[in-house]
Amino acid sequence: MTENRRPRTVIVGGVAGGMSAATRLRRLDEQREIVVLEKGEHVSFANCGLPYHIGGVIEERSALLLQTPESLRARFDLDVRTGHEVVSIDRDARTVTVRTAAGTEQIAYDDLVLATGAAPVRPGLPGAERAHVLRDVADVDRIVAALAADDAPTTAAIVGAGFIGLELAENLAHRGLGVTLVELADQVLPPLDPEMARLVQDRLEAHGVTVRTGSGATAVEGDDLVLADGTRVPAGLLVMAVGVTPESRLAREAGLETGARGAVLVDAAQRTNDPHIYAVGDVALKRDAIDDADSFVPLAQTANRHGRLVADATVGRTVKALPVLGTAVVGIFGLTAASTGWSEKRARAAGRDVRIIHTHPADHAGYYPGATSMALKLVVDAATDAILGAQGVGEAGVDKRIDVIATAMRGGLTASDLADLELAYAPQYGSAKDPVNMLGMVAENLANGTTRSLQWHELDDALAGGAVLVDVRTAGENAAGAIPGALNIPVDDLRARHGELAGREIVVHCAVGQRGHTAARLLTQLGHTAVNLDGGYRTWAAATRTVPAAV
Amino acid sequence: MTENRRPRTVIVGGVAGGMSAATRLRRLDEQREIVVLEKGEHVSFANCGLPYHIGGVIEERSALLLQTPESLRARFDLDVRTGHEVVSIDRDARTVTVRTAAGTEQIAYDDLVLATGAAPVRPGLPGAERAHVLRDVADVDRIVAALAADDAPTTAAIVGAGFIGLELAENLAHRGLGVTLVELADQVLPPLDPEMARLVQDRLEAHGVTVRTGSGATAVEGDDLVLADGTRVPAGLLVMAVGVTPESRLAREAGLETGARGAVLVDAAQRTNDPHIYAVGDVALKRDAIDDADSFVPLAQTANRHGRLVADATVGRTVKALPVLGTAVVGIFGLTAASTGWSEKRARAAGRDVRIIHTHPADHAGYYPGATSMALKLVVDAATDAILGAQGVGEAGVDKRIDVIATAMRGGLTASDLADLELAYAPQYGSAKDPVNMLGMVAENLANGTTRSLQWHELDDALAGGAVLVDVRTAGENAAGAIPGALNIPVDDLRARHGELAGREIVVHCAVGQRGHTAARLLTQLGHTAVNLDGGYRTWAAATRTVPAAV
Ligand SMILES: Cc1cc2nc3c(=O)[nH]c(=O)nc-3n(C[C@H](O)[C@H](O)[C@H](O)COP(=O)(O)OP(=O)(O)OC[C@H]3O[C@@H](n4cnc5c(N)ncnc54)[C@H](O)[C@@H]3O)c2cc1C
Ligand SMILES: Cc1cc2nc3c(=O)[nH]c(=O)nc-3n(C[C@H](O)[C@H](O)[C@H](O)COP(=O)(O)OP(=O)(O)OC[C@H]3O[C@@H](n4cnc5c(N)ncnc54)[C@H](O)[C@@H]3O)c2cc1C
Ligand SMILES: CC(C)(COP(=O)(O)OP(=O)(O)OC[C@H]1O[C@@H](n2cnc3c(N)ncnc32)[C@H](O)[C@@H]1OP(=O)(O)O)[C@@H](O)C(=O)NCCC(=O)NCCS
Ligand SMILES: CC(C)(COP(=O)(O)OP(=O)(O)OC[C@H]1O[C@@H](n2cnc3c(N)ncnc32)[C@H](O)[C@@H]1OP(=O)(O)O)[C@@H](O)C(=O)NCCC(=O)NCCS
Repeated sequence: MTENRRPRTVIVGGVAGGMSAATRLRRLDEQREIVVLEKGEHVSFANCGLPYHIGGVIEERSALLLQTPESLRARFDLDVRTGHEVVSIDRDARTVTVRTAAGTEQIAYDDLVLATGAAPVRPGLPGAERAHVLRDVADVDRIVAALAADDAPTTAAIVGAGFIGLELAENLAHRGLGVTLVELADQVLPPLDPEMARLVQDRLEAHGVTVRTGSGATAVEGDDLVLADGTRVPAGLLVMAVGVTPESRLAREAGLETGARGAVLVDAAQRTNDPHIYAVGDVALKRDAIDDADSFVPLAQTANRHGRLVADATVGRTVKALPVLGTAVVGIFGLTAASTGWSEKRARAAGRDVRIIHTHPADHAGYYPGATSMALKLVVDAATDAILGAQGVGEAGVDKRIDVIATAMRGGLTASDLADLELAYAPQYGSAKDPVNMLGMVAENLANGTTRSLQWHELDDALAGGAVLVDVRTAGENAAGAIPGALNIPVDDLRARHGELAGREIVVHCAVGQRGHTAARLLTQLGHTAVNLDGGYRTWAAATRTVPAAV
Repeated sequence: MTENRRPRTVIVGGVAGGMSAATRLRRLDEQREIVVLEKGEHVSFANCGLPYHIGGVIEERSALLLQTPESLRARFDLDVRTGHEVVSIDRDARTVTVRTAAGTEQIAYDDLVLATGAAPVRPGLPGAERAHVLRDVADVDRIVAALAADDAPTTAAIVGAGFIGLELAENLAHRGLGVTLVELADQVLPPLDPEMARLVQDRLEAHGVTVRTGSGATAVEGDDLVLADGTRVPAGLLVMAVGVTPESRLAREAGLETGARGAVLVDAAQRTNDPHIYAVGDVALKRDAIDDADSFVPLAQTANRHGRLVADATVGRTVKALPVLGTAVVGIFGLTAASTGWSEKRARAAGRDVRIIHTHPADHAGYYPGATSMALKLVVDAATDAILGAQGVGEAGVDKRIDVIATAMRGGLTASDLADLELAYAPQYGSAKDPVNMLGMVAENLANGTTRSLQWHELDDALAGGAVLVDVRTAGENAAGAIPGALNIPVDDLRARHGELAGREIVVHCAVGQRGHTAARLLTQLGHTAVNLDGGYRTWAAATRTVPAAV
């Protein structure tokens, strides 16, 4: 194959995974010919910034374009060709066929890296031809143009309440549109569990976004989007953000093996079943860090990471498998929602016996001004105390806690080990017992049987079984909102009044679980059977409310 | 010993370590009598908030008082006695002698927990009787009263530029005083290395604080503090913040073993050489997480953590040793400085062969508004790639990165492993390659010989040995400030111009090390011998400048 030329690596797709591979490869091999073929007009652009240019937060379109073919040529001697779409691979000849404005050509390769990403799914609704999607700069240009037109829409419907749908909702609301977010599932942000996602929905609604969960879009009629339940949603601008699908057609047609969701199967070195062809980024299948199962995680960090790794692999370096946790974060009207690893629903679906912990700590010491509260959730393997996942929603400090937990997971620390992490503490930054430490303490108490807890969805059954629910908050807190049927005995009165509870199974709860823990320990030692409602009133309220909370 | 009474645990000192032990103990044992003896007027106060009440940031004094004897009695059935100073321990009789306003009494114990903390060191300078120290609420009251007096001072001298000294400097400056910070060492914040600490000093100076490093205080004369070099520093208010010493007199007089700095020797269960006596918090000696040596780390997180642990130990639970990294953070005029583990100087003093990495990443994606740059430093064991320590200084996101690295250290991850951490990325929160990932990539490149770097302090020798220094930044950057003697060849011109460097050993540098890395790889592959100046111009400039930088 190698005619009279230098060894050549051809990379298909010139953004996160592809360009990271190209630049790293150049640093490893100055001699190799590196050709990057990109069907679009731009390479190395900031996909993740696209929604924010629509909202005007990132004012300059040029800020999205991190590199150009010229800059990449100058610095890395890369042969970057935009407007070059690879339409087929001839594995025997080791060539790709490329379509350009000027026609079709063959390009030979020694190594081929597929970094074609994933394409937005376009549900085939009648009338939805006018729907936008958001993947690249051209999509942004189209949306920006529509919003700048004389007959610019004043309403927008976004189908899909995942990360991109949420970012779009915020940014279109910023631009003054009346935004409706439509989601088939019963909650926004499906990677989160519902009681956590509810907090995000509260925030959306508080900022005027109409959220319609549990209802699918069925048709587009005129300016309206029609939902399965008959509701008509104003959709002057219509955007589909219902997920992405790996752009693996090329691979499939070339006989490369694919797996779940049609993503390309690769080994730990990102190699496909053809030893000369690699795949990275959204087009490639990943391995889940928890159960090693097939995993489709279309995220920038993984694309960049695997892009760099594949360069090492192509020059013959030993590389090691990098499974994925799927750590992700989104900012929404000042709120941060983040997660790593598995949600509770995913763990339960996988048949795991789990322990669940909800807390509502302050991001920093309460006595220092500006502290805000967040909701954290930890999903723990009941058999091993391994951390399966974590979620956080709050004003500040959520990304930090999720990053710490993701790192602990990578380091193989148990949930109880989180109690002992030594995190940087001064009153502006955290607490002497950091929220992550607190999760660890609760986990340890559950693991060694110091305490038992009950989840919000187990409460009704417990009460139906005859348990008494005791609200150990103050009378004032109780008056401001209570779980129906709860008896209010403030924790500080329990020693005097516990006789009232004699002979009953007891569920205690406070606002967040902390006083409940002290109460449950006290009652248990006084001879009662007591469990603590995990996450307290706040988790229960978020999980059960159907109307937005005051924010 | 146990007369006709319940088993009794006596805790000496009622703040971080002591009160954490007391509350946990109550949750574990409802029957035990728990007596907390505190010589001061307050328990459970927010030591770490004290400087901020002086500055008015924490407006209400009451915000510092987290619990009272009454609240602790009500919730935890604790017998908390303020104004009770333990003056001696009779180990044979298992009693302590307590001095109160009313006289002296004996109190018997079954278990005794010493949580007496550490006392500010008061250097014996002539005339320094009027100097304040800052440890408790009474100290704050005295300083606040001095500042509110009719003849309130307009200048302040603070001796000692550690964490508390810096916080005081900021807070006194907030109140409008002319502040001078005096430090015997050649830098502020001794736990950091000098080139990192310089950035903190820059910030102090930019906010009008006069910083005098490398000069000890020798006397107080009238309103002035006189330094060893003869300088007179205006010191209307004088505060000593030169460190703390364990309050271990009680322990020593009772024949308990002490170690480094006079701190009380304890085992993994916080037990002293007397099986009935435990010690936690600042008074107790810790074990260093890196080399298991004696370590004196007077920090709140450790005090709380060991306080909780000792409660478990006293009820007979198996507990595990918790060595310390000494993770710490301070905010100073909007700048955050944090560190975990060992500094470079400490590692070198311990005879370790280390690899050092300096980076200057943005806290979040540069294309999203508001990104600011930070300085990070990683200290790596050259033999094992183990992370020995990290430091960070910057506007935002520093505490997050140090917490992640502290967690990685606890999980036993290597420096190279940091490249693979999967951290939450969206443009407001980080970068697709997070600053911590980048440290890992650089570490990996050094570990496997992909690249070689040179430290700022090695540059002069390299140049004296005949190496040529090549600045690969743009001509504009070079013109704005350059290392003397550097030849400017922008990285994008290197392929064309590398012939100019033939036959010379080459040191390349850019602004931060990143383009330098690409340049060094390029030159190496073109047959040259090239090393990259670690941290680039910014680290070199911070390390070598003696005048404040523009901020
Ligand atoms: C709006 C938006 C917001 C996002 N926000 C985040 C975020 O906050 N955090 C996060 O982690 N991730 C985010 N992502 C996901 C992240 O951008 C992707 O995971 C990442 O870009 C995937 O990298 P990749 O290299 O696999 O694919 P891409 O970056 O999508 O690049 C693939 C490229 O291949 C080209 N291509 C495809 N087929 C061919 C062909 N046949 N011939 C030539 N070229 C071809 C495409 O035109 C495309 O430019 C976001 C994505 C979008 C769209
Ligand atoms: C101004 C300031 C700011 C700080 N900022 C931070 C920070 O930001 N982050 C951080 O991690 N750490 C910080 N610290 C350190 C932190 O407060 C201590 O590490 C922590 O409080 C130690 O807990 P301890 O229980 O060992 O001692 P302490 O909290 O000091 O409590 C000891 C108590 O014992 C009492 N006592 C002593 N001897 C006797 C006796 N013989 N009889 C009866 N009572 C006695 C004392 O009066 C004192 O109240 C700060 C400290 C100060 C002073
Ligand atoms: C930016 C892009 C072109 C890759 O370029 P790159 O030079 O490989 O990557 P970076 O700029 O991130 O730099 C990383 C390199 O600098 C090195 N580096 C970083 N800081 C350094 C420092 N201070 N000292 C020495 N080396 C340093 C790293 O080790 C790494 O080199 P290596 O791979 O040889 O180890 C590619 O990632 C891209 O196109 N990104 C935009 C698209 C995208 O990612 N979209 C999704 C997110 S919005
Ligand atoms: C506050 C103080 C009295 C200790 O009280 P405490 O009740 O033990 O501690 P916290 O309020 O931090 O709560 C921790 C407990 O609540 C539990 N908890 C926290 N959140 C919970 C939740 N959501 N659900 C269930 N349990 C929870 C923890 O597991 C822990 O209980 P455990 O020790 O039995 O495992 C003591 O630390 C103190 O005096 N601090 C002030 C002084 C100080 O620390 N100064 C230095 C820093 S400024």
